[in-house]
Amino acid sequence: MSFQNPVFIPGPTNIPESLRKACDMPTIDHRSPLFGQILHPAREGVRHVLKSASAEVFIFPSTGTGGWETALTNTLSPGDTVLAARNGMFSHRWIDMCQRHGLTVEVVETPWGEGLPAQRYAEILAADKSRRIKAVLATHNETATGVRSDIAAVRRALDEADHPALLFVDGVSSIASMDFRFDDWGVDCAVTGSQKGFMLPPGLAIVGFSEKAMAATKTAKLPRTFFDVTDMAKGYANNAYPYTPAVGLLNGLNESCRMLLDEGLENVFARHHRIAEGVRAAVRAWGLELCAASPEVYSDTVSAIRTPEGFNATDIVSHAAQTYGVAFGTGLGEVAGKVFRIGHLGSLTDVMTLSGLACAEMCMKDLGLDIALGSGVAAAQDFYRANPALARKEAA
Amino acid sequence: MSFQNPVFIPGPTNIPESLRKACDMPTIDHRSPLFGQILHPAREGVRHVLKSASAEVFIFPSTGTGGWETALTNTLSPGDTVLAARNGMFSHRWIDMCQRHGLTVEVVETPWGEGLPAQRYAEILAADKSRRIKAVLATHNETATGVRSDIAAVRRALDEADHPALLFVDGVSSIASMDFRFDDWGVDCAVTGSQKGFMLPPGLAIVGFSEKAMAATKTAKLPRTFFDVTDMAKGYANNAYPYTPAVGLLNGLNESCRMLLDEGLENVFARHHRIAEGVRAAVRAWGLELCAASPEVYSDTVSAIRTPEGFNATDIVSHAAQTYGVAFGTGLGEVAGKVFRIGHLGSLTDVMTLSGLACAEMCMKDLGLDIALGSGVAAAQDFYRANPALARKEAA
Amino acid sequence: MSFQNPVFIPGPTNIPESLRKACDMPTIDHRSPLFGQILHPAREGVRHVLKSASAEVFIFPSTGTGGWETALTNTLSPGDTVLAARNGMFSHRWIDMCQRHGLTVEVVETPWGEGLPAQRYAEILAADKSRRIKAVLATHNETATGVRSDIAAVRRALDEADHPALLFVDGVSSIASMDFRFDDWGVDCAVTGSQKGFMLPPGLAIVGFSEKAMAATKTAKLPRTFFDVTDMAKGYANNAYPYTPAVGLLNGLNESCRMLLDEGLENVFARHHRIAEGVRAAVRAWGLELCAASPEVYSDTVSAIRTPEGFNATDIVSHAAQTYGVAFGTGLGEVAGKVFRIGHLGSLTDVMTLSGLACAEMCMKDLGLDIALGSGVAAAQDFYRANPALARKEAA
Amino acid sequence: MSFQNPVFIPGPTNIPESLRKACDMPTIDHRSPLFGQILHPAREGVRHVLKSASAEVFIFPSTGTGGWETALTNTLSPGDTVLAARNGMFSHRWIDMCQRHGLTVEVVETPWGEGLPAQRYAEILAADKSRRIKAVLATHNETATGVRSDIAAVRRALDEADHPALLFVDGVSSIASMDFRFDDWGVDCAVTGSQKGFMLPPGLAIVGFSEKAMAATKTAKLPRTFFDVTDMAKGYANNAYPYTPAVGLLNGLNESCRMLLDEGLENVFARHHRIAEGVRAAVRAWGLELCAASPEVYSDTVSAIRTPEGFNATDIVSHAAQTYGVAFGTGLGEVAGKVFRIGHLGSLTDVMTLSGLACAEMCMKDLGLDIALGSGVAAAQDFYRANPALARKEAA
Repeated sequence: MSFQNPVFIPGPTNIPESLRKACDMPTIDHRSPLFGQILHPAREGVRHVLKSASAEVFIFPSTGTGGWETALTNTLSPGDTVLAARNGMFSHRWIDMCQRHGLTVEVVETPWGEGLPAQRYAEILAADKSRRIKAVLATHNETATGVRSDIAAVRRALDEADHPALLFVDGVSSIASMDFRFDDWGVDCAVTGSQKGFMLPPGLAIVGFSEKAMAATKTAKLPRTFFDVTDMAKGYANNAYPYTPAVGLLNGLNESCRMLLDEGLENVFARHHRIAEGVRAAVRAWGLELCAASPEVYSDTVSAIRTPEGFNATDIVSHAAQTYGVAFGTGLGEVAGKVFRIGHLGSLTDVMTLSGLACAEMCMKDLGLDIALGSGVAAAQDFYRANPALARKEAA
Repeated sequence: MSFQNPVFIPGPTNIPESLRKACDMPTIDHRSPLFGQILHPAREGVRHVLKSASAEVFIFPSTGTGGWETALTNTLSPGDTVLAARNGMFSHRWIDMCQRHGLTVEVVETPWGEGLPAQRYAEILAADKSRRIKAVLATHNETATGVRSDIAAVRRALDEADHPALLFVDGVSSIASMDFRFDDWGVDCAVTGSQKGFMLPPGLAIVGFSEKAMAATKTAKLPRTFFDVTDMAKGYANNAYPYTPAVGLLNGLNESCRMLLDEGLENVFARHHRIAEGVRAAVRAWGLELCAASPEVYSDTVSAIRTPEGFNATDIVSHAAQTYGVAFGTGLGEVAGKVFRIGHLGSLTDVMTLSGLACAEMCMKDLGLDIALGSGVAAAQDFYRANPALARKEAA
Repeated sequence: MSFQNPVFIPGPTNIPESLRKACDMPTIDHRSPLFGQILHPAREGVRHVLKSASAEVFIFPSTGTGGWETALTNTLSPGDTVLAARNGMFSHRWIDMCQRHGLTVEVVETPWGEGLPAQRYAEILAADKSRRIKAVLATHNETATGVRSDIAAVRRALDEADHPALLFVDGVSSIASMDFRFDDWGVDCAVTGSQKGFMLPPGLAIVGFSEKAMAATKTAKLPRTFFDVTDMAKGYANNAYPYTPAVGLLNGLNESCRMLLDEGLENVFARHHRIAEGVRAAVRAWGLELCAASPEVYSDTVSAIRTPEGFNATDIVSHAAQTYGVAFGTGLGEVAGKVFRIGHLGSLTDVMTLSGLACAEMCMKDLGLDIALGSGVAAAQDFYRANPALARKEAA
Repeated sequence: MSFQNPVFIPGPTNIPESLRKACDMPTIDHRSPLFGQILHPAREGVRHVLKSASAEVFIFPSTGTGGWETALTNTLSPGDTVLAARNGMFSHRWIDMCQRHGLTVEVVETPWGEGLPAQRYAEILAADKSRRIKAVLATHNETATGVRSDIAAVRRALDEADHPALLFVDGVSSIASMDFRFDDWGVDCAVTGSQKGFMLPPGLAIVGFSEKAMAATKTAKLPRTFFDVTDMAKGYANNAYPYTPAVGLLNGLNESCRMLLDEGLENVFARHHRIAEGVRAAVRAWGLELCAASPEVYSDTVSAIRTPEGFNATDIVSHAAQTYGVAFGTGLGEVAGKVFRIGHLGSLTDVMTLSGLACAEMCMKDLGLDIALGSGVAAAQDFYRANPALARKEAA
């Protein structure tokens, strides 16, 4: 493993040097006050990143998938109904998890490439006079298709129907990279992980619970122990966990939040948008299209790029790995073989991004696609030159 | 955080330099063949450490508690009965988890300080003509009391009753430190974590499943997704996980297994026994007693040391942390305040151990106990001198 | 400091992950046999990299400049004459050092951009009937101009004149990157550092002495202590140094040699040549010229690129640092402001190199040069695609 | 190499985690303003540690020996006379260096174990009416014998004679550990290295020059290039070096100074004194004597401990390394075989120190000396308990 090139998968991201060092930590006693000096600021930092004044933040040695399970099992009971749209692989998996845990899912099938159908949600919620629906699931950013959905619209759908269902948002590939507003959007459970916007190694499920979600834990009957937030809350009160926490990653999370908040969240979002716009300029220059159906749903963290009919897009990913030592993402599920994905979240500079675009060009050309070498790079260069980064200190 | 002194908590342990470096790894694509070069040898290494020819090894971004949940939820169904003895905090917690997940637990209350009552198990299993009991839980090493139980005896109890129940063993604080025989003892699910005998940071649940346990997954009805071993097995076949794996820790695990197997498991166990004997010599020299009721159950990974009536043993732990920057373990549950614990597993040398003993002496003296300074140290020095380490290369 | 982008200075180079870890080493006793296990293989590794069967290798906690001083002070006496050509900043500095140490330098002024004038050397040596010249200095690769000279031709000049002068070669920016033949070329002192072809942090002067050079130490009168090779040789015989060695860097050097020799020196050289050819293709595509006068002297480790009359090439370097966080090299001495330099030695991949080229393009365009964005990138992509890397494992 | 135990050599010391991380730095452009952000604060930090308002601080990629050479070659001319006392191996070596560089040394032979003979210095200086003596050498702490000398007394000797000679002080094993007063003592050149009080890896010579020493550089005729402070000063003015600096170590030095100054120099000195007193209590408890002749000259950074007549003290060092993996220092020169040395400088805690004492006890007993196990440990425990550390935060 040479570790020379940046990765362009949609997470785990490239890890900043300072975060690698923060995570690489000798053992301390995780039941000592010392540990509290890591835990509490980390939780507070996450709360700020979520744009919440009061969310209860829980951090598990797990992943985003464990975060989904945390949201469901702590607030719902067997047989409960949830409303969810399936518009990509990750929304699909969350739906599948619900079903495995004995929940009834009202699934709104949605074309892959489109955002969440807030209007359909509104209709269904309005029609749900019996308040059968206990929770609404919303994937903020579909990592599989590079589609960002409008969570505020989902909240409006709930509000307009005056519906009491909880709002669960999968922000795994959006939080800390794109605007996320826990309080403004009335999110009840927000789920993310360490390895995307927080730029850390994988290994943490990070969840925020609203007061309403916390109240729901009192009656929720789905079995849970490892992911029990009540145990966790008790532990936190004593600078501890109900079991052994991932101390190094928590230390990294604390440092990551400090970095993000020091930069300023709006600057972080603008930085992601700017890098993403360069990538999209390259895609246009190549004459290709995004999987995302329209600019309103373009993701600033990952672009899924459609390749021509009859071409196996996954070959680009294999070829890039084997020939150039560069990692892109494959298409998943319905769009497997039809798209390849460039992750552009976390710690990236103009020139790192350009190196990914240059690699993609070589791969496409190597595999017979009609791509002019340098064309996408030039388009992105043009964009980056014309739109200077807000804070150059990021490169300092 | 100065990180100068070794820790003497019963895990997480002191992390060897080479393992810290193995874990501190830049991002790679966890869906690439490269990842398979980490995953498969790590699983194979664990299998050898378990002394199994055929156990299916699963590794979750989680902890030992998640490993417990993996064992239960993949093999059992709501309402199933399990047999378990409560002889310390960790057996207590596993029992509690069973109950939360809707299992019926036949609990054999056992004095804290004693080992698992294999004889009682035998009687209960023999009496269970209807085969109501689906699984027997056994905590190999009670970390709370420093007690090692006889798992072979539990297996004999099952065999003598010709009972088909699964045998689940919590080896969190024994595996990779004390003799553990997955195949010989007919273990069906073995559970451990990264942060004890494997000397890694916390963050991995490591489980081994027998063929019989794998078969049980087909009918098990307890809900599970994150901890589903069937999904995991499918992923492994494609060099992948059902979600994002903790790549750095897996890389560390691979290296850890290589270190342990290179040293030789019997040498690893002998090394732990030798270090533990030195600690026990010190305890005797101090005129104190272990929580463990008799030498047959002495743990080679942790010693829980009883302090005199009326003395709060937890003060030693606080005082050591505040005054000397040294971490010991407190007593938990029934023995809270009555014992303090010295963890002596993982990467320790004679002189590291002596520094812990010297610290304990100072603390006890500072707090008014009648301890002769240097007495425990001298007893341990004597033992270590008289019983040279098998492999000096460990210190090379 | 964000450390996100690769550096494109002609050393120190990008440090491979494995070498950073090898250097980052806890303290050991540098007077113990343990240290010998680092020192001796490192020296042996360097000897192989020098392509020598018998060179005495000395490694000082210093830099290439210290290596120059080692060569001079251990073999020469005040008033001795040396022959040297000045064709760039680094040959200039070595000449200056000679003069400061009381040596007489016969300087052959040579246009910057040209290689060493072996023919002029031959004439001078042939004319030196009194054998006044004690040593010939030869800068293998002029880092300031990106010019590689023909050391074999210098050796022939000596041989044809049957001249006994010592041959000193500055291989700081060539050794371990371009073909270097200590024995074949009859080199008497070879000088390099840790931070170029060995891809380590700066901090080591690495020198090889021939038997003849070792003999010269017996009569050399220039004062020396820190750089005394006789003291050093005595120390080595006892696994030690005359003072405190830079243990971590030596450990890194040992590992670096292992990496280079595992890859195969010819493969290492081919890799550098290939990367350099891509850079040169880009330069041609930009319509610019190299400082190096002709292809025979093109350096495979650094390219000095001439910018149009009236343009301050140093602006590119400042602009790249400030605007894109990328480090190039400035012109030095006679070519200050006239060239900028792209270092392309050590640990580089196609896409890393392309990112540097893309950055240079943006900078030149930003500063008003008539450069087509993507043009150099495309030329290099074309070259890299058409000329696949020999060993793809480098990217594995 | 297991790196488990602390080292007890008198440097390099145990490296604090934060300093290891500061040194382990990716490559930056050492000719950029970024580098200035490391260099200047590091120099300023050293100046404070030297207790000087105006010393010019120079930092070479070298060692303390290179620092000695820097002092001599930048200020003196061939044939100049210097006054020096030989009371240990390191003063001996500095004298030897002077002689090799063509200086005349007036050597005051002084029993090993005694401090510098300031009274003899005074007499010689008073008698030197012709001002033949250009510099006085003073080894502040003789690392070989564990003897600290009175530099203020040497200054008084100069002042009383109204002698203009420069005062050079070797503070390699004192600076940043014991009180050192560049300005108060009128030091002209102070020499140290990175690997002792600064707790960094070896690789830096650190020197301070007074205004008077700087003036002397103008007329000094000893040849020098690598160690030329005038070149260095010119470089510093441009955020640069005359060659490639050891950037990572400089970054570490910057951080080290920050740590030391945050703790407070007087606290640092008190901490060293306290740890040393514990070691000396142990030595007394063993019934052994220090090489240092009297308490006034006891070193707070290293203790050289005499072993009984007929016993080879070096055996302790070999045995400790081979049997217990612990590094002590051997006796050097005149006291080879007669003493072994315990280094107790830099990053050490009570329990780390106790582990070294416990090891020494085992070794002495193993080798047949009449030492009561635990006796030295108990004496040190007693001292540490009775004399609590000033700042417990060091262990926090």
